[in-house]
Amino acid sequence: MQNFTHIKGGVTTAKGFRACGVEAGIKYADRKDLALLVADKPSAVAAMFTTNKVTAAPVVVSRERTSGGVAQAVVINSGNANACTGEEGLFNAYAMTRLTAAALEIEEVHTLVCSTGVIGVELPMEPVVSGIDKAVAALSVDGGDDAAAAIMTTDTMKKQYAVKLQIDGRNVVIGGMAKGSGMIEPNMATMLAFITTDAAISAASLEFALRDAVELSFNRLVVDGDQSTNDSVIAMASAMAGNSVLEPSHSEWNSFVDALKTVCLELGKQIVMDGEGATKFVTVKVVGAESELDAQQGARAIAKSPLVKTAFFGMDPNWGRIIAAVGYSGANVIEQQAQISIGNTTVYDHGKVADPDTLNAAQNEMKVRAFDVLVNLNLGEGTDTIYTCDLSHDYVSINAEYTT
Amino acid sequence: MQNFTHIKGGVTTAKGFRACGVEAGIKYADRKDLALLVADKPSAVAAMFTTNKVTAAPVVVSRERTSGGVAQAVVINSGNANACTGEEGLFNAYAMTRLTAAALEIEEVHTLVCSTGVIGVELPMEPVVSGIDKAVAALSVDGGDDAAAAIMTTDTMKKQYAVKLQIDGRNVVIGGMAKGSGMIEPNMATMLAFITTDAAISAASLEFALRDAVELSFNRLVVDGDQSTNDSVIAMASAMAGNSVLEPSHSEWNSFVDALKTVCLELGKQIVMDGEGATKFVTVKVVGAESELDAQQGARAIAKSPLVKTAFFGMDPNWGRIIAAVGYSGANVIEQQAQISIGNTTVYDHGKVADPDTLNAAQNEMKVRAFDVLVNLNLGEGTDTIYTCDLSHDYVSINAEYTT
Repeated sequence: MQNFTHIKGGVTTAKGFRACGVEAGIKYADRKDLALLVADKPSAVAAMFTTNKVTAAPVVVSRERTSGGVAQAVVINSGNANACTGEEGLFNAYAMTRLTAAALEIEEVHTLVCSTGVIGVELPMEPVVSGIDKAVAALSVDGGDDAAAAIMTTDTMKKQYAVKLQIDGRNVVIGGMAKGSGMIEPNMATMLAFITTDAAISAASLEFALRDAVELSFNRLVVDGDQSTNDSVIAMASAMAGNSVLEPSHSEWNSFVDALKTVCLELGKQIVMDGEGATKFVTVKVVGAESELDAQQGARAIAKSPLVKTAFFGMDPNWGRIIAAVGYSGANVIEQQAQISIGNTTVYDHGKVADPDTLNAAQNEMKVRAFDVLVNLNLGEGTDTIYTCDLSHDYVSINAEYTT
Repeated sequence: MQNFTHIKGGVTTAKGFRACGVEAGIKYADRKDLALLVADKPSAVAAMFTTNKVTAAPVVVSRERTSGGVAQAVVINSGNANACTGEEGLFNAYAMTRLTAAALEIEEVHTLVCSTGVIGVELPMEPVVSGIDKAVAALSVDGGDDAAAAIMTTDTMKKQYAVKLQIDGRNVVIGGMAKGSGMIEPNMATMLAFITTDAAISAASLEFALRDAVELSFNRLVVDGDQSTNDSVIAMASAMAGNSVLEPSHSEWNSFVDALKTVCLELGKQIVMDGEGATKFVTVKVVGAESELDAQQGARAIAKSPLVKTAFFGMDPNWGRIIAAVGYSGANVIEQQAQISIGNTTVYDHGKVADPDTLNAAQNEMKVRAFDVLVNLNLGEGTDTIYTCDLSHDYVSINAEYTT
């Protein structure tokens, strides 16, 4: 049973946080491109970062800073990833935190930094410096919305989600914002997400919960299978809700973790829904696999296959491409035992091929914005779910024209 | 030193083979869709097949038949892959070999079958049956060209290559034909290739040579990263050149293997060049990797990345996406030590980012049909080369509209 309710909100919905988004002019004119998220006091922090061996400068800095478990502010810019920018890039990332800390009169070691945008171009520090001043002046308890706007790159919509729940009879809020939207694949590729909660929780427990939540949400998204140099998920807890400190032995621990997972998952779904050029949101479920790993491999292969994804775009119930993807995924599959459904329509059943009427029905299921693909391998108990989108003409256009 | 010369030709250029391609009407009207390749006598055969766990019926049959090392004929249809077609599909694949063998008056166990096209649709046997009769009547020592046309699906051009060389002072020819063109990735995905030679060679030695040749050619191609249910490479040797039987201890063994590799590689390059919607042919080389495996992982990640491939399409020298792909490939990479060139233009050098003039020069290198991407990791001696193409609007169009 779900112990939380969805509420409107984002990173400033939980008590103890202010945020803003301002126009710094880093890359684009007339759009917000610098965000600031600040806790009233030094707060418990947990974070997860890209596993790409080529790691952007802000990831290096924030990874180092979050290892202490305490943070108070995050400065975030869009339009430039500050990745592959060498010593100067690292210097600039540190400078961003130093300037932010000075303007906020907080500890520099409690200040984190994230960047997203083009790789390999030095960060233009002049707009960043004036942007930070502007941002400090603009901070507000209602600023979550502007912050969500400022972190967007090719995103077409802001991504926010919040829930409230009761812990120890106290109101607790968990809210977040995120940005996508290309390069999304396992391990949070080109994705930034920021979660705030007013729950009292230790940094270690927050990390434990976050790791679990990310694994089943951000790490279950596939847009194009690329993985970026900048991915970061940062969670901060202000402890202002007044509950007794959460840890796994707390009687309401599971409620908190479920709520956190839901915030991550709903933000993740928004990322896929807004994947570059996406016209379809597809939930790929593999069940009956020999193992959990098999299920995950099968679901990921379906979700990553360009042939499957173009078929989604074309609303073509091409189950042959789906079973072929499972076939090369590494998962065990016995063709004569498998079943495949699109929406509520079974298109392949133990070797029996759908007739034209059934295929028409399946095609109709694909005409809506969001549908499910279910593969039952009938070989065991392994299940997994991956969220993905189609591969459209707009994906090609967006990415063929990005830097030039 | 190269001991062979390129000659015009295909599967009927080597002595002892006849072929043809006829209009059977399996899927399309007014195009050849059934090919026959026949040796004058039972011949040594070696073959490699898809590693997809979902295996088409003709692959099941031909794998079984080639294990004996002797074959005399291959019947090939396009327009229908006879994959995921259950018991009836297997029955039909056997029937194709039985009918072909009967019409040719040869052994059924020496008769192979390949199919390519749509998955999951029962093979219409009526046109296949009459097509086989037509094909047997049309066999010719000049029929290689027609056969190459008949095996095409979304291919836009026939793929053939032949070389001649001298072994034991005798003229030896190796020729081949292939078809692509989507689903091309490691392990010969949706690809059929047929190689004939008049060299005298045992089946075991031919398999040894073929395995080596395929690894460095067909298994080094990436179109979209999908892997099909039908991939097959079949090589037959008629022994009519009169050389002493080739085996690894033969003094001219390496000459034969080099020539065979070249035929496979040139056919492979034609497949990539004609990849679905491809406008660019890109040779991705990773050198200086810590190991051969690292080099291969890095090169494959670049070649498979949708972000890199759309940048190729857009002629965007986006080296950031290239280094990011290496970063998530599993290969070790130290950003400050890597170098990246596009054509002759270095766009990233030990952490130093190219200036706008250099990027313009790199962009000009991408305006031609074929160019190289070279990544030097400067960490060791590992090298690998992968051949790939771009991801274009036409890829999306072709695959969004395939079955519907």
